[in-house]
This record gives sequence, structure tokens and C-alpha cells, in this order.
Amino acid sequence: MAAFADRLDAAVVRHANPVLVGLDPRADLLPESLLTGPGPHGPQELAAAYGRFCRAIIDVVAPCVPAVKPQAAFFEELGPAGMAALADVINHAQEMGLLVILDGKRNDIGSTAGAYARGLLGPGSPWRADALTVSPYLGDDSLRPFIDVASQRACGVFVLVKTSNPGGRMLQDLVAEGRPIYRHVAAYVESEAARTQGECGYGLVGAVVGATYPQQLAELRAEMPHTWFLVPGYGSQGGTAKDVAAAFDGRGHGAIVNNSRGIIFAYRDEPYAGRFGVARWEAAVEAATRDMIDRLRADTPAGRLG
Amino acid sequence: MAAFADRLDAAVVRHANPVLVGLDPRADLLPESLLTGPGPHGPQELAAAYGRFCRAIIDVVAPCVPAVKPQAAFFEELGPAGMAALADVINHAQEMGLLVILDGKRNDIGSTAGAYARGLLGPGSPWRADALTVSPYLGDDSLRPFIDVASQRACGVFVLVKTSNPGGRMLQDLVAEGRPIYRHVAAYVESEAARTQGECGYGLVGAVVGATYPQQLAELRAEMPHTWFLVPGYGSQGGTAKDVAAAFDGRGHGAIVNNSRGIIFAYRDEPYAGRFGVARWEAAVEAATRDMIDRLRADTPAGRLG
Repeated sequence: MAAFADRLDAAVVRHANPVLVGLDPRADLLPESLLTGPGPHGPQELAAAYGRFCRAIIDVVAPCVPAVKPQAAFFEELGPAGMAALADVINHAQEMGLLVILDGKRNDIGSTAGAYARGLLGPGSPWRADALTVSPYLGDDSLRPFIDVASQRACGVFVLVKTSNPGGRMLQDLVAEGRPIYRHVAAYVESEAARTQGECGYGLVGAVVGATYPQQLAELRAEMPHTWFLVPGYGSQGGTAKDVAAAFDGRGHGAIVNNSRGIIFAYRDEPYAGRFGVARWEAAVEAATRDMIDRLRADTPAGRLG
Repeated sequence: MAAFADRLDAAVVRHANPVLVGLDPRADLLPESLLTGPGPHGPQELAAAYGRFCRAIIDVVAPCVPAVKPQAAFFEELGPAGMAALADVINHAQEMGLLVILDGKRNDIGSTAGAYARGLLGPGSPWRADALTVSPYLGDDSLRPFIDVASQRACGVFVLVKTSNPGGRMLQDLVAEGRPIYRHVAAYVESEAARTQGECGYGLVGAVVGATYPQQLAELRAEMPHTWFLVPGYGSQGGTAKDVAAAFDGRGHGAIVNNSRGIIFAYRDEPYAGRFGVARWEAAVEAATRDMIDRLRADTPAGRLG
């Protein structure tokens, strides 16, 4: 199997767009047709509905985009039944040809981090994700097992660098030794990315960098030439296509842009609510996905991919 | 239900010791009697063995200690079957009268953090933990949903402040605005602990502070008078009872000390290997637990609890 960075690059080029569809099922926003009756709904029923919902989205977006990002929190919220649904969703996405980046923001001290890495990454693992998001607070020896397992299994790791939420500033923007904390993390990530680069020039260690900080996105792109960026915050969090333009290299490679609510719950908001409504929520998913692809092609270097 | 801080304090006083037994099942260290045949063992079989192993430990330690700390990573490593075993282990520990601190080191941006908090904390949630460990890299608005849900459900949150692993220094010890990053986190945690203090004087927001840094433990105890400390790193990571003495207040309250491998796999190491061996691994668990209790009573202010 090719290195993760090369598989991701090939998928982005094949679809000629960098859209990452976030699978964030929320009970209160689900189309009613996926639930039986008015509720309250138990975890088993909700887990089954999440499974149906995500499978349907996957079927719609698999022909158009390179990858999906299931958010572990919403499945874990439902208990063991939710976790079984998560495994099923990951499996279905891969059967449909999508890369799966599991958004778990996991980490722990070294030997325990190894358990997360072995369990979550790779086709031989129970969860089978192609890549995983991880948190850096525990430092380099906590990230090492993820990088090692990802390297052995041709998978990827995305380290939180600069997150899209306002509170991310609390620690990430504190200045130590002349630069903010997030740039210390960025330096570590880039060195590991450079060390593990595949044929595409990018490495297996990527960075999560929010669309809500376009200036920092540009600075980090310049400092991190071997690092894939996973960019959250597009759409519902306020990031636009122009805001994420700086995440790409000059050829339009090197970044994937996530949209969760703006795609999967597109049927709830204009212009899709009026055009489709809840009865045609899957058509709204497709329209919102195609619109995002068009906007990224128009306003970012990703337009050069096609 | 009483506030978590008060429930924890009452349990520590009732048992007159602050021992937190870490439930970190590892396939390669399990007593062979828990597995059928030489392997390889599939996730279903391992999950069942983890369940039996942890239930047996719980039955041994429930009369002696206030709380247990299941490590989510080892259950998650086994996929959905492991997560079902984790739910069963949490449930059994509570039926046996133990408080359960789930070691998940979870977090995400605000609305997603809420999903983890709602799903993992409290008797009405699918996982039912009494408290959860969380990571602070995403900042205050990511910690807020955990604190809010914990407050509503009389549960607790332990924020990573100064972790026990060597690599923790990479970010945590960087100095910004005149103090290391971990003291910035500590200041936030203490303010939230003070705001939520129960009758015992401690709040629902606690701090994870490693036994491997006794000097910092003493400084943080002085700065954080309303904050429960969860102290990892005792035993196999090198921390001694004397090292953790500074984690307690003058009356012996305010800290719980975790030991995972040194208790649950005591049968593998001296002096317990010779005295008990694998055939009597549960007796080794009990002896190691009682020895740790004795050492903490002898060498720390926890001796004043009884």
C-alpha cells in the first residue's frame, strides 16, 4: 500500500478537489425519516439512525470527494452501540473508495498512546481508520507511537496545531521563546513530516489548522512545506474559500478542507432548505458538496488540480 | 447526589487512603487463565478476557480503595467489543461502590466537547463515569462543556496540567509571560475549582499532576488550594510515596494517587511474583494494593485520614 500522504494526494487529484466531508451526526438535527416516531430515542435506535444517515451521505459524496472525517464524539456519546455504528460507517466509507480520517483528538503517555494507534489505524486494526487526529499537549513521546504505527501501516496522523475555536488562543497563542506555542508544535510536526515524506513531497504527519485564522494559515504554509493541512472551520464556523486559499501550495496540493454541518445538514439552511427540504435531504448534501467544490476551485489554488 | 468533590472526599476518608487503581488491561500481560488457548486471540475474546480481568480486580480492591481509573485506550484498541467491555467494567465498579474516573483524555471544540461530556459523564449517560480526564490544548471554551455537564450531573473533570512522561516538558514547560504553560493551565483549573467548590473545600475541576515531578507538585499544591489532584506515575513510572507527599493538603486530603501496572500486574514482579505467582494473581493484586496503602499512610499526609 502506498504511503498515506501519496494516497491522499492521489485521491485529491483524482477528484480534482480537496473537500473533506465531516460526519458529525447529531440527534436533534437528523432528518425525521431516519427515526421511528417522535422519541425519546434510546442509544440503540439513535446509533442505527446515525449509521443509516452516514451511510447515505457516504453514498452521495463518494463519487465527488476524496475523504470523510467521522467525529468520534458523536458516536461515543451513544455508548457502545454508537461505537459499533462508527466502525460500520468507517468500513462502508472505505468500501466506497473514500479515505477515512477519524477525528478522535486522542492521546496519552507513550505506551498508552500506542494502544490508541494500534487500535485505530490501519486495515488490520479493529477501527481501520486511514488517519487519526491527535492532541499534542503530552509532547513528543506521546506523538511518537502514532507516527511509528502510522508509518508501519501506511496511515496518517493529524496533530492539532492551531484550532478553529476562539478559546484555542488560550494556550496556543501564548508566546514562549519568541513564538507562539502553536508554532512550537508546528516545528515538530514539520520536522516529522519532512522525515516521512512520500513521493508527493508531503509526509505522514499533518497539521490541523483552522480556517478561521487565515493569516496564521499563510505563515504556517510557508513554514511547513512537507505538512498536509487539515483545515476545519469552513462554513458554519465562518471560514470562506478565500480564507482557506493560503492553506494550499502553489499547485493546489497540500490541504484538505473540512465541512461538516454545512454539508450533512444542508437541508436545514438556505439556499438548500427551500430547494430541497427535509424530504430530499440527500439531494441537499449533494448540492452543498458540489457548491463547496466549485467555490474552492474558483477561489483557491485547488482550481489548478483539475 | 452530593457534589463529585465531596463524594470523592468521603470515599477517601471512608477507606482512609487515596489509592486509585488504574485498570489498564494489556493482552500480553494478562494471566493466561483468562484466555482460552495460546492465541492469537481475536478482539471479541480479548474483550471478554479484559472484562473478566477488570471485574476480578474490582472485586478485590472495592473493599480497600475509593476509586478506579479505567484507561479507555486499551478497551478502544479492541474495537467495538472492547468498548462494550469498558461499559460493563464501569458499571460493575459502581455496583461495587467504587467511584469511576474514566481516563480518556478527551476533548474537542465546544459543541463537540459537549457530546463527549454528555455521553461519558453521569448516571444517565451511556458510559456513566463519575469523572473524566480531559486535555487542555483546545482552550477554555473546549473545557467549558465538560465543566457545565459535570456540574449539572454531580460529576468531575480532571484536566491534564503536568503529565508524568518525559516528553510532557516539550510544551508544558515552555515559559510564556513569566511562567510555564502548565501553570497557565493550573491557574484556569484552580479558578474553576474555586468557583465550584463543595463542602470539602475542593471543586469539581481537578488536575492531573505527575508523581515524577515532586517539586512542581509542591508548587502547584500551594497555588491550587481548591483543586483535587490526580497523581499518575507512582510505581512503574518511578514515583514513590515520598514523591507524592506534597500533593496532599495538611490534613491528607486533596489528592488521589494512581497505580496501574504495579497493582493489576503485581503477579509478574517481585516481591509478589515469588509469593503468589500467576496462579494467585488476584492475591497479588490485593497484597500490592495493601502495600501501597501502607506506604502512602507512612510517608504522606494521607496517614492522617484514618
